Amino acid sequence: MQVEGVELAFYSAGHVPEGKADGLVLWLATSQLRGELLNWPGLNWVLTLTAGIDHVAGALPPGVTLYNAHRLHDRAVAVHTAAGMLAAARGLHRFRDQQREGRWEPRRDLGTLDGAQVVIWGYGHIGKILEDLLRPFGARVTGIRSRTPDAERDAALAEADWVVLLLPSTPETKGIVNAEVLARLKPGAWLSNQGRGNLIDTGALLAALDSGHLGGAVLDVTDPEPLPEGHPLWHQPDVVITPHVASTTRDLVERGAEYTRKFLEEMQAGREPEGRVAAGQRY
Amino acid sequence: MQVEGVELAFYSAGHVPEGKADGLVLWLATSQLRGELLNWPGLNWVLTLTAGIDHVAGALPPGVTLYNAHRLHDRAVAVHTAAGMLAAARGLHRFRDQQREGRWEPRRDLGTLDGAQVVIWGYGHIGKILEDLLRPFGARVTGIRSRTPDAERDAALAEADWVVLLLPSTPETKGIVNAEVLARLKPGAWLSNQGRGNLIDTGALLAALDSGHLGGAVLDVTDPEPLPEGHPLWHQPDVVITPHVASTTRDLVERGAEYTRKFLEEMQAGREPEGRVAAGQRY
Repeated sequence: MQVEGVELAFYSAGHVPEGKADGLVLWLATSQLRGELLNWPGLNWVLTLTAGIDHVAGALPPGVTLYNAHRLHDRAVAVHTAAGMLAAARGLHRFRDQQREGRWEPRRDLGTLDGAQVVIWGYGHIGKILEDLLRPFGARVTGIRSRTPDAERDAALAEADWVVLLLPSTPETKGIVNAEVLARLKPGAWLSNQGRGNLIDTGALLAALDSGHLGGAVLDVTDPEPLPEGHPLWHQPDVVITPHVASTTRDLVERGAEYTRKFLEEMQAGREPEGRVAAGQRY
Repeated sequence: MQVEGVELAFYSAGHVPEGKADGLVLWLATSQLRGELLNWPGLNWVLTLTAGIDHVAGALPPGVTLYNAHRLHDRAVAVHTAAGMLAAARGLHRFRDQQREGRWEPRRDLGTLDGAQVVIWGYGHIGKILEDLLRPFGARVTGIRSRTPDAERDAALAEADWVVLLLPSTPETKGIVNAEVLARLKPGAWLSNQGRGNLIDTGALLAALDSGHLGGAVLDVTDPEPLPEGHPLWHQPDVVITPHVASTTRDLVERGAEYTRKFLEEMQAGREPEGRVAAGQRY
């Protein structure tokens, strides 16, 4: 990559360049490497090529401006979420299990999203794209934000056929989907978590699945994560697990590089690049 | 079910009512039972609650009018097709396999349908609904009909990232996707068959998968069907098989009964019900 007027240096696992730096572009760094990089002398700004910022925000030195790259990830996450919901409604996970056993056995308990009440909890950039994707399928979407009054939120949850979690990880959202919230859902409702694993109390989730109250769950994030071999979540027949890949696309590296190039050009031109995180903002 | 002015009699496996009948509503009858029912004395019309008519058209006595019920099935088939494409693009079948083994292993080779060239071969009612569902995902849809010139069809196939088969089964469409057609596709293209199993030459399909030319296939219908235990299609890692359930929804029986009631009311009122199959029409 070349950007006029910008001198680039590259880090990798075990290699941190010497000298000063005005800015830092963070991607795919381990937490130890990240710690070293964030304490670079002279740093004015940090761009994390992720949507979430919880891995950076707490360790950011004072006076350093943080930018995130939600636009790089939002669309893929919305598509991944819609794909998981549709696949679950059509029973594709169950048919895959049958396929491995060579069993041709039609099932009757298949749905579409036509008329489905979908609550998007954490209704931001991704949620709006998801709503546009689901509307042609006949789904009716309700968005919940942090400023939604509790009574309104609880009423929406009680009507939901699907609850989609797109919340960030903050002290307030940790374990927000607990036994009480799960009990409030309609029997047979499905949960999709595409936000952060610790939004859900895993023990309460397993109990709601075992009792049959919850219809099923589509999880791209888990707690613990990565989910260890032998964890009971793996073996729930109506839990569909993907390993934190909602924003992954085969061209993500190229797109990340292109995003970075444009970001640096904006900065060189004296314009404010998109994605600036306000001081004190945690997601 | 009650419809004013209509006297109803019911058949089941092993039980065919006696006497004459003006009309026959066909659903879930075995081919032997269907043969008996179609030769009922006095029959003026037959309503098959299916979208396809190939199982009835050849055995219809002269002078009997045939109706199909494509509207009952079209939307579910379009949703099932979209779900299969999106799930395959996001690698959900591969992640399901990993889930059974308790393996948390992200993959990079995931796509969305953004910018994907989708050719719908057999572009009728279902194809139009499918196009409306896929457009918000950024897919570019080209429809091929029986009247599409060969050169135009071949050009579209050569550009396709996805080829979706929604063709009916007729003598002309049998084996229409053969080794020559598969070779014409772009390397890595995917195939979805939601029409009839015998549209595809299964041997040629297996060869195109084994050579790596074809990216994968999503099949709701197969040849042979049902697919027998031990058939090599079951074990292709990028073949996703569902057992002819594209039009199935958990409320299909209720919707079929409701469709029949409205059909009979139309007929009683002296109006032409929808779904009339023209003489000589084979799908």
